[in-house]
Order: sequence, then C-alpha cells, then structure tokens
Amino acid sequence: VRYFLYYWPGIQGRGEFVRLALEDAGADYVDAARAPGGVAAMMRLMRARASTVAPFAPPFLQAGRLLIAQTANILLFLGPRLGLAPVSESGRHAVHQLQLTIADWLGEVHDTHHPIASGLYYAQQKAAARQRAADFRRHRLPKFLGYFESVLRGSPRGYLAGRACSYADLSLFQMVAGLRYAFPQAMARLERKYPRTVALHARVAARPRVAAYLASPRRIAFNEQGIFRRYPALDG
Amino acid sequence: VRYFLYYWPGIQGRGEFVRLALEDAGADYVDAARAPGGVAAMMRLMRARASTVAPFAPPFLQAGRLLIAQTANILLFLGPRLGLAPVSESGRHAVHQLQLTIADWLGEVHDTHHPIASGLYYAQQKAAARQRAADFRRHRLPKFLGYFESVLRGSPRGYLAGRACSYADLSLFQMVAGLRYAFPQAMARLERKYPRTVALHARVAARPRVAAYLASPRRIAFNEQGIFRRYPALDG
Repeated sequence: VRYFLYYWPGIQGRGEFVRLALEDAGADYVDAARAPGGVAAMMRLMRARASTVAPFAPPFLQAGRLLIAQTANILLFLGPRLGLAPVSESGRHAVHQLQLTIADWLGEVHDTHHPIASGLYYAQQKAAARQRAADFRRHRLPKFLGYFESVLRGSPRGYLAGRACSYADLSLFQMVAGLRYAFPQAMARLERKYPRTVALHARVAARPRVAAYLASPRRIAFNEQGIFRRYPALDG
Repeated sequence: VRYFLYYWPGIQGRGEFVRLALEDAGADYVDAARAPGGVAAMMRLMRARASTVAPFAPPFLQAGRLLIAQTANILLFLGPRLGLAPVSESGRHAVHQLQLTIADWLGEVHDTHHPIASGLYYAQQKAAARQRAADFRRHRLPKFLGYFESVLRGSPRGYLAGRACSYADLSLFQMVAGLRYAFPQAMARLERKYPRTVALHARVAARPRVAAYLASPRRIAFNEQGIFRRYPALDG
C-alpha cells in the first residue's frame, strides 16, 4: 500500500514524527502536500464528508480508503505495519503512552513561543513567551527529559519499550534534535544529565535510512515557522 | 476483570473521562486513589520499575498485570472491552482521533487559567490568563465546537463515530459540562449555534448509568482546583 501524508509544507512540525517512521521503514509514501497543488488537495480532503471523521487539523494520512488524523493516532496505525511497534497489546499501549507523553511535551514547546494565542505572532506575545520559556527551561524540560531517561534506564536494550526501535524512539530523537535547535544553551547545560537519551538520539540518527533521510532534501530544515524555533530571548 | 483507576482525588480532571466510560459501562472498578492511603499507593505505582513503562502522570489504569497511562490510551484500551468503541479498525481509529482532539481542546482549557506555568498559581499569571482566555473564547472555543458539530452533522445516528455511543461521545459530554461550568456566559452566547453538540450532551446525561453516576457522590463537583475553573475574569 502506498501512503499519502498530508502536512503543511515548509515546516517539520507534527508531520515530521510521521515522516521519520515512514522513512525509517523505507515505506512507499508521498509527501502529498509538498507536491504542486498539494495544499489545495489537503484542504479539500479536510472538508470531505466521505470519510467517517474529517481531520481537525493536519497531519493526516491516507492509506487506501482510510483517512487518519492526529499524529499519535497515525503512528498507532503505522506502527505494526512498519515494524515500529511491539506485537503484544501491552507493548503497543506502552509505546502509544510514550508517544502521547511526547505529544504533551511538544505542545509545551509550542507554547513557549505562543503562550497567549496561536493566531497571533510571536512578537505580539513576547513578554509572556519569555516567562513561559523560563519556566519550561527550569521545570518542564528537565521533568520530561528525566522521565524519558528513567524509562530508558529501566529498559534492557536501550530502546524505550520492548526489544527494538519503535516509533516512540524515532519521536524522542526528533524531540532532542528540535530542542537542541530551539534551546541550544539550555540543552548544552542539561544534556550531560541524560546520557541514555542523548545516546538514543545518536543511535537513531545513525540508522541507515534515517541518516539518508536527514541528509536528503526531503528533510525540511528547522526554521522559525515550525514548532521548534530558535529565539535567543527564550533560551535564557 | 476488576479495573483500578488512579487519579488525584478531589478533582474531576483527566480522570473523569475514564470514570465516565467505566460508569456508563457498569464496569467493576475501584477509584483507587480516593480510598484511604490511595494517593500513597498511586505514588508508589508511579515509581514502580516492574511495569514496562512507568506513567509520566495520572490518570493510569491497572487491569490485571497491565498498567496503562495517558487518558486517551486508557480509553483506547477500554473502548472495545466496555462496548464503547466500534469493532472495525477504521472505526477505532476514528474514535481515537476524536478523543485526541478532545485532549488537545482540554489542554487549551487548562491553559486559559495557567498560560505561563502549571507550577504557579492562577493569581500569579492572571494578566496573561485574561488574554489567553479572551482568545480562547473568541477563536478556539468556536473552532472546536464547530468541528464537533460538523462531525455530528455528518453522522447518521447522532453519535460522533459509528452507530452507537462511544467513549468520545462521553468525553464530548464532559467537555460541554465543563465549559458550561467554567465559561457560563460565553457558552450561553455560543450554544445555539451547536444544536447537535448540545443535544448529544443531553442524551449522554440521560443514559441511565451516567445519570445515576452524576447524581452519586462518586461524581466530584467541579471546583477551582480542576481543569475547568469558574473565574469570572476569564469569562469575558
């Protein structure tokens, strides 16, 4: 089956968590909104009544007649098909639980630069952003990093759940990559406390298909329209 | 199987979405953290290394040897067991997609009173809260209500997905109930635009086991420690 991923072109955003899974598995997929006319097609699909449930927002995935939205839900669907989730029910729920925690974390990253309204510009909420980012760097960032470090500490093979790399491992790679981009100073100070997390990031980056993807034009560069943004005022 | 739900006693919070599913299904469950010594037991379980993956935060559910965290993940697990999710894979993903959108919405409700830091008091972030709540009332609340109204408009039986009541319907009931509590003026103005959503709320509230639950002491009252809080300054 050929997968069609729909997400805003020009940013990594939430779509990147799906892209990493598709790329790592060598799946047959089309990054459909980046093709000419792709955004128009995406907007048409979002209005569609044919599917049982229209997406609230991108990303969404088309797989045959199925249309699936919400990043973690897409990965729940793709996991077993791409060999990126354990086979057991308990294992699948464990990986999904981790993915949903990453989704919460990512939401907090977004809100460091948009604490008041996603419909306003960063410049219109800079004072609140400074406050929220300071709290994020001081409390929330160490809390999330410490949590994933403790999960890795308890795991036998250095992956978050089970014996092999799952989509949650790929997503944790993306979190570290994004946080290094957005908060280089804070991460430089913090990283030595989370060696297993840092090692996982390096191990995922070295996976052959991930490495090939990261070096390709298919990987969009981090930028100040995405979720991870490098605003020095927010890095302390 | 007997289910053990662990969540902060004293507030409805995220645990309420799980409680509604257990109550509606007449499931055999213990609201474990509300029993004497329950919070201490909850904290012990969160530190446990025995489970594959420790929870990041409550709520979590114990079912036999399984320990499952993240509200939407718990409902994904319970859905088929409680008869609150479609049988087909596409149906299960549709309901889960809706639940994850409700989770996003709930996070935005929380941030109306805590836009800067969850570790600070509301009084310490009141100015930012006023701004965020104004944006929520003006843009986000109608956007989410409109989305669920459009999903209901496209559905044959007045439920969000499939032919019967799912856990997402119970959760949408809870959103309407909470929003009426927290934003009575904004909701009074908005509700007439979303008749299907309002009707769904009433239909869920009238389900015999839900009605019995709501009238029982098992239902914690809304209060200003929960996610839905009635702060008149935030209601415009």
